[in-house]
Amino acid sequence: MEPVKKSNWRKKLHDIIYEADTPLGKLFDIVLLVLILLSVFFVTIESVAGLPEKVYDLLYYGEWVITIFFTFEYIARIITVKKPARYIFSFYGIIDFLSTIPLYLSFILVGSNFLLTVRALRLLRVFRILKITRYVGEANKLKKALQDSRPKILVFLFAVLIISVIAGTLMYLVEGEASGFNSIPVSIYWCIVTLTTVGFGDIAPITPLGQLIAAIIMIMGYGIIAVPTGIVSAEYVRSKNIEDDNYVHVNTQVCRNCGATKHRDDAEFCHRCGNTLHDEIQPGGNDL
Amino acid sequence: MEPVKKSNWRKKLHDIIYEADTPLGKLFDIVLLVLILLSVFFVTIESVAGLPEKVYDLLYYGEWVITIFFTFEYIARIITVKKPARYIFSFYGIIDFLSTIPLYLSFILVGSNFLLTVRALRLLRVFRILKITRYVGEANKLKKALQDSRPKILVFLFAVLIISVIAGTLMYLVEGEASGFNSIPVSIYWCIVTLTTVGFGDIAPITPLGQLIAAIIMIMGYGIIAVPTGIVSAEYVRSKNIEDDNYVHVNTQVCRNCGATKHRDDAEFCHRCGNTLHDEIQPGGNDL
Amino acid sequence: MEPVKKSNWRKKLHDIIYEADTPLGKLFDIVLLVLILLSVFFVTIESVAGLPEKVYDLLYYGEWVITIFFTFEYIARIITVKKPARYIFSFYGIIDFLSTIPLYLSFILVGSNFLLTVRALRLLRVFRILKITRYVGEANKLKKALQDSRPKILVFLFAVLIISVIAGTLMYLVEGEASGFNSIPVSIYWCIVTLTTVGFGDIAPITPLGQLIAAIIMIMGYGIIAVPTGIVSAEYVRSKNIEDDNYVHVNTQVCRNCGATKHRDDAEFCHRCGNTLHDEIQPGGNDL
Amino acid sequence: MEPVKKSNWRKKLHDIIYEADTPLGKLFDIVLLVLILLSVFFVTIESVAGLPEKVYDLLYYGEWVITIFFTFEYIARIITVKKPARYIFSFYGIIDFLSTIPLYLSFILVGSNFLLTVRALRLLRVFRILKITRYVGEANKLKKALQDSRPKILVFLFAVLIISVIAGTLMYLVEGEASGFNSIPVSIYWCIVTLTTVGFGDIAPITPLGQLIAAIIMIMGYGIIAVPTGIVSAEYVRSKNIEDDNYVHVNTQVCRNCGATKHRDDAEFCHRCGNTLHDEIQPGGNDL
Repeated sequence: MEPVKKSNWRKKLHDIIYEADTPLGKLFDIVLLVLILLSVFFVTIESVAGLPEKVYDLLYYGEWVITIFFTFEYIARIITVKKPARYIFSFYGIIDFLSTIPLYLSFILVGSNFLLTVRALRLLRVFRILKITRYVGEANKLKKALQDSRPKILVFLFAVLIISVIAGTLMYLVEGEASGFNSIPVSIYWCIVTLTTVGFGDIAPITPLGQLIAAIIMIMGYGIIAVPTGIVSAEYVRSKNIEDDNYVHVNTQVCRNCGATKHRDDAEFCHRCGNTLHDEIQPGGNDL
Repeated sequence: MEPVKKSNWRKKLHDIIYEADTPLGKLFDIVLLVLILLSVFFVTIESVAGLPEKVYDLLYYGEWVITIFFTFEYIARIITVKKPARYIFSFYGIIDFLSTIPLYLSFILVGSNFLLTVRALRLLRVFRILKITRYVGEANKLKKALQDSRPKILVFLFAVLIISVIAGTLMYLVEGEASGFNSIPVSIYWCIVTLTTVGFGDIAPITPLGQLIAAIIMIMGYGIIAVPTGIVSAEYVRSKNIEDDNYVHVNTQVCRNCGATKHRDDAEFCHRCGNTLHDEIQPGGNDL
Repeated sequence: MEPVKKSNWRKKLHDIIYEADTPLGKLFDIVLLVLILLSVFFVTIESVAGLPEKVYDLLYYGEWVITIFFTFEYIARIITVKKPARYIFSFYGIIDFLSTIPLYLSFILVGSNFLLTVRALRLLRVFRILKITRYVGEANKLKKALQDSRPKILVFLFAVLIISVIAGTLMYLVEGEASGFNSIPVSIYWCIVTLTTVGFGDIAPITPLGQLIAAIIMIMGYGIIAVPTGIVSAEYVRSKNIEDDNYVHVNTQVCRNCGATKHRDDAEFCHRCGNTLHDEIQPGGNDL
Repeated sequence: MEPVKKSNWRKKLHDIIYEADTPLGKLFDIVLLVLILLSVFFVTIESVAGLPEKVYDLLYYGEWVITIFFTFEYIARIITVKKPARYIFSFYGIIDFLSTIPLYLSFILVGSNFLLTVRALRLLRVFRILKITRYVGEANKLKKALQDSRPKILVFLFAVLIISVIAGTLMYLVEGEASGFNSIPVSIYWCIVTLTTVGFGDIAPITPLGQLIAAIIMIMGYGIIAVPTGIVSAEYVRSKNIEDDNYVHVNTQVCRNCGATKHRDDAEFCHRCGNTLHDEIQPGGNDL
């Protein structure tokens, strides 16, 4: 409540960078979003061979503009925040740092292969979009629905892995190297490819027994996909009901007077006969 | 309410073309639907090489018949509607125009490659089916269910794209050009192919690390498919519940007087004979 | 009620063949089921080349046994049923006839290619399983759930086809014959392969624009799969609720005495205050 | 209740091995889990050719350590359990035995091909994880949801098989050996690959009619996947509803006395202050 003693421009800058409620804060977020998307687009295009030389030049200049903006933003974030160390070593702080430095590193480091990986660090900026989208309600709901069904999804993933390990070993024994099942890990990889109904076809069984096992794996995969879907569906249906907000939690408390059950958790009087539900607080309760 | 001064045949023609309530209007819609489907079939078949010459001749004559019909229809739509300009520049007006002209254009334009694209414009007629089917109730419900879950679906699509960009770049760095991951865009394309469980197999990882990442992408894709399904399921279940809001939960309580069962959970009197259902607590209940 | 004048053995045979309530009728169904499955297995194995000569001999003898059984069964069905003509020209009558004759036809007809198709007719026996399984409750529920959502599924299929036609034509124009998109029908076929997430990979886009369109088609397909799933889920959830049978349909009738709504459709007295809901029949109603 | 006369260390060992409630029991389970996962990892890695000789040596020593642990565990299980014979011939007893012996067998048996299969027996240890995870609540729920919908899933699988047999035979007749449809079993295998949307692409139709049938199969498969999903979703939604049976629908009625909202639909008295909610009909209501 008491006014914080702080230089005015730092307070303002802080609001622009860290908050999205003011018009300038919103504008900042949009500019940031556009620059991130542009940056991702640049990294992506840069990897394409055979474009005209001009395009690569343009990408280079564009990348400089973006890097300078991100550099200033990174410095601004540090000087406006109360605890700079906390920001610098936070998840987003590290992302911000790593996605800003690649262009500077390219002057220091020499060696094209390693540089390629360093350049790709710029792609980490994409995670900053999540920082912006965390204001989006739907994203939070989606995240919540996934979090609520996490134990179920873990059990499901574990089941998928066990099936893949067993079926993969079986296929390795049955098919062997002639069909491309060179080792058990490759065989497990093929099993996941099949179970998830992706089916690249780079490895495929050729013996009748192998094809029979493959058919069983496919039908299992086809059925197993129902499990996460069912989980998320049920989670959504429930969250929809609760969202509808016309539901309250009730308990098994029984009214002493009329025997009605299913009272609201916070009920003090029976909804059917109006009798108090709390004997010990009855005298005080009557004072209402 | 006041009778519109309008030439009679134009009014009649308007009703036939724009409305589907009269027998003639229905007939017009059915004729239109058949001609559109025929036209789409013609465009499709025309592209097949190696058919007997006669077939191409037949397709050509058929296309003329359809074009003439659509020309007359287009003119009729313009002269019967109150605000012709509004129709001409509407979505369906442009569709109608573009799908009618290709055959006329083929006299003016010379150059087979461009002509091919122009001929394909005739396929736009398929959109007119939507104009007709908008009278179908189910299509509207489907459309509504999709529209209601649009924000959720957008968030979901965005998540798919972010995963594809990050995983695609990773695969490009890990696999490189030897396995066909020539550039980041191609790598992202491969990632979408894998995440959606399509799996063409034209590009497939060959290094152990690449196959491990691919396996993770596949299992993610296999799980992510649960999200849109859950969303649409919940949307449908809710719309079904609203339809079914005329159902209440009943229990197995039996009326002492007439033996009727299946009373509402909160029923105090029998729905068939009006007798009370709570004998033992009746005296206390009267004290209210 | 009156005893039907009918030769006794025909009555008994009729009960065995057409009903599944008696022990003999059940035995007959099981024998039939086993023979059908054996027969399907024989047809399947027969097509495999390179087996020892003995196996083909065994299959031939086995097929004769099965054919003779089915011949007797077919004759028995005709002579025991009241209206033989009706059976003979019914769906199952034709199936029974066609699946019995192939072996006899092989004496009359000469010409290996045509004979192959005729032999496959024996596979039609598989449809008879449906005749037996129609007694299975679950199959009927499944059938009902599918039937109830048929209009929705048709609209969905129609949407899939329209997308395939438009996207197929687009891919044909963009990719052309170099990538295997030889004609619009082939292109539409590829589109269905992609949209349903099957992805054979025999045809795959190679141009950047083609790959972009393909990515959009895949993500659409990935999302569209949610629609039939949502439909069937909602249908099942509803049928489960109704199955639970603890729900009754209520209407908007209002009690004149206490204002309670949502009465059972057949309610004659208010469930809350016990007052009659039918003024005009009140005097008679009190007599209960 | 009465203390069992039993040597003390055997009782203690029994509790450690067979129960997970004590700290030592939990530790034992975790050690077991880690060793099983290590063992599975060793079997998997061992099959990879081309690793440095040192790795194979390490795997061999590691396998000896694990085998000795499992040997002691197996013996301990036998001597601590009341009815050893019952354990030995139980499912997990056989698994335990078979997954322990491979290394001992490698001294007796000579012949690399057979030995490979024997070594893979060690993978059976993975099933023991299920023994441990049976304490996990979520796994049981998942298992229950699958069990409850088993009859539906069986009918579904049967439908998939019938469709595959019929469509497979059709494709064999239409496509023939030129496209790789060498026999009906291979054709059925291809059908399952397509119906489950896996789509390897090692076999793919090339004739227009074959591609048309394939398109129909794919769309069917795309739709059929909705069935198990719908089943499991409904099952989950129901189990969630039962969990959530502690919720009642409330409305926006406001109490005149204390202003409390969200009363049960059938509430007659305020749950907070006990005042009646029906002033205007109160006099009539008292007449009950």
